[in-house]
This record gives sequence, C-alpha cells and structure tokens, in this order.
Amino acid sequence: MRPLDILSGLSNQKILVKLKNGMEVRGELKAFDMHINLVLYDAEIDEGDVTRKFKKMFLRGDMVIFIS
Amino acid sequence: MRPLDILSGLSNQKILVKLKNGMEVRGELKAFDMHINLVLYDAEIDEGDVTRKFKKMFLRGDMVIFIS
Amino acid sequence: MRPLDILSGLSNQKILVKLKNGMEVRGELKAFDMHINLVLYDAEIDEGDVTRKFKKMFLRGDMVIFIS
Amino acid sequence: MRPLDILSGLSNQKILVKLKNGMEVRGELKAFDMHINLVLYDAEIDEGDVTRKFKKMFLRGDMVIFIS
Amino acid sequence: MRPLDILSGLSNQKILVKLKNGMEVRGELKAFDMHINLVLYDAEIDEGDVTRKFKKMFLRGDMVIFIS
Amino acid sequence: MRPLDILSGLSNQKILVKLKNGMEVRGELKAFDMHINLVLYDAEIDEGDVTRKFKKMFLRGDMVIFIS
Amino acid sequence: MRPLDILSGLSNQKILVKLKNGMEVRGELKAFDMHINLVLYDAEIDEGDVTRKFKKMFLRGDMVIFIS
Repeated sequence: MRPLDILSGLSNQKILVKLKNGMEVRGELKAFDMHINLVLYDAEIDEGDVTRKFKKMFLRGDMVIFIS
Repeated sequence: MRPLDILSGLSNQKILVKLKNGMEVRGELKAFDMHINLVLYDAEIDEGDVTRKFKKMFLRGDMVIFIS
Repeated sequence: MRPLDILSGLSNQKILVKLKNGMEVRGELKAFDMHINLVLYDAEIDEGDVTRKFKKMFLRGDMVIFIS
Repeated sequence: MRPLDILSGLSNQKILVKLKNGMEVRGELKAFDMHINLVLYDAEIDEGDVTRKFKKMFLRGDMVIFIS
Repeated sequence: MRPLDILSGLSNQKILVKLKNGMEVRGELKAFDMHINLVLYDAEIDEGDVTRKFKKMFLRGDMVIFIS
Repeated sequence: MRPLDILSGLSNQKILVKLKNGMEVRGELKAFDMHINLVLYDAEIDEGDVTRKFKKMFLRGDMVIFIS
Repeated sequence: MRPLDILSGLSNQKILVKLKNGMEVRGELKAFDMHINLVLYDAEIDEGDVTRKFKKMFLRGDMVIFIS
C-alpha cells in the first residue's frame, strides 16, 4: 500500500484535515491529487466560537499536516 | 474528478480565497493554472475597517490556503 | 543501506514521528513513500492534557523532522 | 485566458505589487517571466513616513502575493 | 571532493547534527542520501534537562543545518 | 525584455539588494545566474551603527526580495 | 563569470558564511556543490560568549545567505 491509497479509501467519507496554520477542516472528500490538493464538500472550519461552512472547498495540498 | 476540476466549475463565479497571511480575497474567478495562480475581477480585500477594491488581480498560487 | 530502507524495517511497528510544528504522533506504520508521506494506524497525538486518537492517519512528509 | 496573460495586458502600465513581507511596491511593469519575477520602472515603496524611489527594480517572483 | 563525500567518510562514526528548529542530535551515522536524509543509531537529543534516546532514527534532510 | 535582462544591464554597476531577512547589501554586481545568485565586489551591509565591508561576496538568490 | 566560480576561487581559503538563522560560521572551504552545500575544515561558530569548533563540517546550502 502506498500512502495516497488511503485517501482513495476515504473518498466520499467525512474527513478531518489539520492545516499548518493550526486550522482544522472537516468535510466530505470528493477529490485529491498527488500534491494532496483536496476538494471537500460541506466543509466546516471552527474559528473561535464560530463555525464557518462552505458548500465546496478546494484546499491546497502544501498546507496539509494530516488527514484522518 | 480531480481537484483542479472544481476550479473550472467556479469560473466566472464569485469566489472566496483564503491566503496564508490570513487575508481573505473575494472576486470573480477569471483564470487559474496548475500552480493555483488566479486572476480575479472586482476583487475585494478586508483590511481592518477598510475594504480595498481591485478591478483586476493576479494572485500567486503558493499563497492560497483554500478556495470556495 | 539507504535512509528509506530503515522505514521498510519499521513497517507494521509502532513508531514515533516528530513534526515541524512540535507535535509528536505515535502509531503503527502502514505505508510510506519517497516524500516521507506516512500512513499510521491507531495514531495518537498529545495536545496538552488530551490525547487525540485517530484510527487511520495520512501524514504529509514535508512536516516530518524525525521518525523513530 | 491563463493567469499570466493578465500580466501581458498590464505591460507598460502602473501596477501595485503586494509582497509577502507586507511591503507594497508601485511602478511601471516592464517585464515579467513565468516565475512572476518582475521588472518595474520608477518603483516606489512606502516605508513608514518615507517613500523610497527606484528608477529600475528587479523583483523576485516568489515574494509576490498579488499584482493589480 | 564533493560535499556529500564527507558524509561517506563519517559513516559508522558518531556525528552531531544541528537542526533548523535549534535541536541538536548526536548518533552513529548509518545511512544518508542526496537529500541529506540521515539514519542514526543510538541517537540522543537534549531537551532541556532531559536526554531522549532513540535506538534508530530517520532524520529528514531538509531540517539539517550542519553535520559534524 | 525578460526580467533577468535588467541584471545584465546592471553588470559592473553599484546595486542595492534587499534581502528577505530585512538586510540591505550594496556592492558592484560581478555575476548572476538564473537562480538570482549574485556575486558582489566591495559589498557593504549596514548592521545597526556598523557598516561591514566584504571584498567579494556570494549572495544566495533565494534570499533576494529586490535588486535596484 | 558565473556566481559559483567565485566559490572555486575561495577553495582552501578561510571564508565567512552567514546563515538564515543568524549564525555565522568561519572555516576553510574544502568543497561545494551547485546547491551551495559546503564542507568547511576547522569551522568556528560564535554562540554568545562561546566559540564552538568543528574539525570538519558539512553545511546545508539552503541555509546560506552569503559567503565571503
């Protein structure tokens, strides 16, 4: 198994993405590439007390720390 | 679907771009490339109380965290 | 022996990964590639008093300081 | 249209360049390449109360956030 | 002589590695590659008053400042 | 004209180089390459009250913000 | 003349290397490559009041600001 294979297995599932600026994004994984660029549907980001919601989100791979 | 395909679907639509320095830019997506370099029309950036407006803006892809 | 060979020897074993943001992740090594992207099973991260647990985790290689 | 095409359209015009260190440079765009390296004529940088002026300036592309 | 040749000469010897986050690691050099990825045996890191020990350590090359 | 052409025109002339760490270096431009690596003769750097002088200096291109 | 040629001229001479973390290293230049990786003999680093000495040092090129 190669690391990117785990991402295939997470397709259409709800994932958690931890970003290098400390932010955490939750959403349904719809697409990824070898740069770890991601597309999430129904993404949510907690910013202090507020949860911001985004119907579709493109996330740049070089910001990712981990995906679970 | 590959991640960049979502950007094609956002062409000529109003998008939100979150940058690595914390800035958020809103504008109409007119062009992008595989480096996630973007061209926005009628772009707006909130800087404290002021909203700066730019008719045409080239945004360097390596500054992007997410696009929605 | 090349450096990546040591990672082969650690497959299916419990490893410690130190990340550039200071975080330490423990888990069972299930996959890696030449970018040092990792897949860990049953991963644990200490955040202050809390230990967060993740069944499967994809970890981006450019965040890694060391693996042991 | 590709993103770099907008820079062609800005040739010989006065542009604003926002840099990653927070600096803003204004000047006439005389040349650019695919790394977003720029040449500006009659460039001006605000540093606190002072405006520094440069007849010709080479600006490294990896410092650019946006160009307008 | 090319710079990497000095690392060949240090194989199986005890080396000191200074990392970009200020950490210093000591250990026996068992492997390296052109990215300066290293494998150390019996590695030691001073963290404040404590010395942490690691039987085998993979160290990512892009964290290295110097090796001696 | 491409951006690097302006550097050819500055050969053997006194230039100012602004670096990413805030330092400014002045000196006579003797050589450059496509990475913007520079060689300066009779280079001067202001460090607080002191001006340090260097007969010959190799400057790494990835530290450059602008050259004028 | 290309920038790396100046490094050839400095071979076996005592050089000063300024690093991105503010450190300055002095030593005899024994080898370099196109990544500006360096090998220094009898290297010295000032750390506060103490001067640390290293018989042989491999220095990673991406940490270099300038060499003189």
